[in-house]
Amino acid sequence: MKNYSIARSRRLRSTPYTSRIEKQGVTAYTSYNHMLLPAAFGSLEDSYHHLKKNVQVWDVAGERQVEVSGKDSTKLVQLMTCRDLSKSKIGRCYYCPIIDDKAGLINDPVILKLADDRWWISIADSDVILFAKGLAIGKKFDVKIFEPNVDIFAVQGPKSFKLMEKIFGKKITEMKFFGFDYFEFSGSKHLIARSGWSKQGGYEIYVENTKSGLDLYDKLFEVGKEFDVKPGCPNLIERIESALLSYGNDMDNDDNPFECGLDKYVNLDSEVNFLGKEKLKEIKKTGISKKLMGVVIDAKEINVSKSMELINEKNLKIGELRSAVYSPHFKKVIGIAMLDKPYYEVSQGFKISINYSTFEGKVCDLPFI
Amino acid sequence: MKNYSIARSRRLRSTPYTSRIEKQGVTAYTSYNHMLLPAAFGSLEDSYHHLKKNVQVWDVAGERQVEVSGKDSTKLVQLMTCRDLSKSKIGRCYYCPIIDDKAGLINDPVILKLADDRWWISIADSDVILFAKGLAIGKKFDVKIFEPNVDIFAVQGPKSFKLMEKIFGKKITEMKFFGFDYFEFSGSKHLIARSGWSKQGGYEIYVENTKSGLDLYDKLFEVGKEFDVKPGCPNLIERIESALLSYGNDMDNDDNPFECGLDKYVNLDSEVNFLGKEKLKEIKKTGISKKLMGVVIDAKEINVSKSMELINEKNLKIGELRSAVYSPHFKKVIGIAMLDKPYYEVSQGFKISINYSTFEGKVCDLPFI
Repeated sequence: MKNYSIARSRRLRSTPYTSRIEKQGVTAYTSYNHMLLPAAFGSLEDSYHHLKKNVQVWDVAGERQVEVSGKDSTKLVQLMTCRDLSKSKIGRCYYCPIIDDKAGLINDPVILKLADDRWWISIADSDVILFAKGLAIGKKFDVKIFEPNVDIFAVQGPKSFKLMEKIFGKKITEMKFFGFDYFEFSGSKHLIARSGWSKQGGYEIYVENTKSGLDLYDKLFEVGKEFDVKPGCPNLIERIESALLSYGNDMDNDDNPFECGLDKYVNLDSEVNFLGKEKLKEIKKTGISKKLMGVVIDAKEINVSKSMELINEKNLKIGELRSAVYSPHFKKVIGIAMLDKPYYEVSQGFKISINYSTFEGKVCDLPFI
Repeated sequence: MKNYSIARSRRLRSTPYTSRIEKQGVTAYTSYNHMLLPAAFGSLEDSYHHLKKNVQVWDVAGERQVEVSGKDSTKLVQLMTCRDLSKSKIGRCYYCPIIDDKAGLINDPVILKLADDRWWISIADSDVILFAKGLAIGKKFDVKIFEPNVDIFAVQGPKSFKLMEKIFGKKITEMKFFGFDYFEFSGSKHLIARSGWSKQGGYEIYVENTKSGLDLYDKLFEVGKEFDVKPGCPNLIERIESALLSYGNDMDNDDNPFECGLDKYVNLDSEVNFLGKEKLKEIKKTGISKKLMGVVIDAKEINVSKSMELINEKNLKIGELRSAVYSPHFKKVIGIAMLDKPYYEVSQGFKISINYSTFEGKVCDLPFI
């Protein structure tokens, strides 16, 4: 596939780390919340193997925060998600599907409870701030909503714990998964969460003081030499093998949480009030008509740039492929697809056309590994 | 400047025209409403000269539509814009700043009135659909809001009129600026507006029937040979010379319409109810504290990938550059900048650092040409 370059502008802006990753060998970008998100540092496969063995530092500043504070902040945040946050704790992260009144997904952020009346919604790629503002204006909520200057970078991989311990001491290794706390570095406090968009473990550093954050970024590469630290980015192979869903790729506003296998984040029996609750009850009763599943395809290469049709032996469309990549582990293409009822069963066969050739595939459960 | 490639996916998806423009020589993309928007076909300067003399066909499918219909649709659309739409007519396009309750800009779409209770908001790069949904839910408006399958391509340049006449006859040349009507091609009706994101004149075709739209796309290149038709895209040089503002580049949610020189689209004396009306009255009384102006810089090259500081002779920051390009017409860099009060005066001098060298510049009025 021919490469096309990405045009930069303020509208698709650089991050504080862009000049660093360009010296460090970034080769491709995508856009994420109107910002550059690195998509490759040379070979995807080399980066995948490295991530699973060592430690990487990722510029994920495109994961923007929507800060909601004020008297009605909890009411607004709860209104937007079908996950019950009534027992949520300060210092914890919560993966929360955000849905509209029709139960269509709008985003799938991690929400951080900073205080009883202050939240950060750490968003996937859609302008959640506009949804929050619209709701708050319409409901006359007493809240303040804005995008703070927070530029996240992540430290991911099995050796991330050893590396971070060298800088922040033992305490940082004792933090639980999806916990966060504040850690000092060169005179600044940084919010650091044990989280990140890989299944290899690690941290996300929510940098508010850019200068100190850049110093920390550099320090990680200095101290990390013994762990073979490298720059990296969310890895398509690793994230599909681990079935980390990507909003906009695997699911969008035409899908509801049940169709996407997010049942455990839907709390219909709770007392709390959220958009789409009645609609979700109705869907639960009548059942879903499509479902997100894994697929394995007997092919060596694929590039997904829009939905691709899955066809059965009668040449009927039975679903669409939304993300896929060649997996060196399975030695096949693996992907995430939305299958129509009744075809979302494990072992359902299908055909797919890739570059004008037809390949065979099978439906399977998620995650792959 | 080194080139970095753009990573494709369903989240930053292709348009129906992507495979065509890739055969036709597109070299760079940007993202626009989660879609690929072509940014260059080789030399920006060659494309600029060609656009000003001939005719080009542009894939601008990233200019998505937010369809608002139903009983309260007019109320909702009016609520979102400070432009008085009470006398708007079916068959007309309206350039409308969309603002929030603090008068901060959210988008600057062209709004098409399709019927008394049906509108298309043809958006710049932000998820206006989420703002509209939030407001409608909060206000309990009786409306239907969705993104229809509409993929615009534009025909731009002085010879666009002759070219379109060859296909659609004299009637299409009689349409007024910002008017639209339906025209038949190969069995389908296409909404065609006399509009487009250049000052060279032309049309935008709102394609709903993809197959017929692709046929029309191909037909334009077939018939257009005598006018030297070429593929193209919004041209950075042409659009800055003409001062066509770009949301996300030149202005964003921290700016209000008065600061951006959009005064004529602010109807404070009207009877209609819109967000931010009281705030705008207040701003009108107290005055603005910054203003969007043109700038001319004694330099031969520039790449803007985020805001760039403008400094005065006392080394104080007096504003920020938001878009800029080398203009072959002026033989200098020209740009659009937000200047702080009291520095937004014509002839105000400043210094700017480009690639670690300092250049001199001057503030001027918009547009340049």
